[in-house]
Amino acid sequence: MYVLGVYDINVKRVAKVKKIFSRYMFWMQNSTFEGNLTKVQLRELQRELNSVVNPNEDHIIFYVIRNEDVVTKTIIGERHSEPSNIL
Amino acid sequence: MYVLGVYDINVKRVAKVKKIFSRYMFWMQNSTFEGNLTKVQLRELQRELNSVVNPNEDHIIFYVIRNEDVVTKTIIGERHSEPSNIL
Repeated sequence: MYVLGVYDINVKRVAKVKKIFSRYMFWMQNSTFEGNLTKVQLRELQRELNSVVNPNEDHIIFYVIRNEDVVTKTIIGERHSEPSNIL
Repeated sequence: MYVLGVYDINVKRVAKVKKIFSRYMFWMQNSTFEGNLTKVQLRELQRELNSVVNPNEDHIIFYVIRNEDVVTKTIIGERHSEPSNIL
């Protein structure tokens, strides 16, 4: 499955959330990861995230798309560099 | 077409970008809009955004999906309120 993960996380927890995401998916830009995951991997990722986030302050949306072929991606602006320093 | 727009915009321009997005799509969370757009609407939205963003500092990704039926959405955390005050 092709998965997009977008998050809005309190700054206190954002480094932890990024670290978890980056073990499963690719960083695309600030607040956005994407990747191909199995159902089991997605469940595991969500389990890990649930153990870190505060549901009153944080919000994550997963868009799970049956396959990548139905998605076209267009970008405005230059590619920012990976936030490797904060992982 | 079902469109997701996620952006990483310098704070100086973010209010303008949100205002443009909100005329075409629905606000989902900080940095994320979604909606059903025609090709013409998407082109018009991108044209407006291009006139505002600085490509060296800003970055927007559009995921264009053939139809909404192939997308499943799951959410972690509570729904934040609409940022109506900044529009």
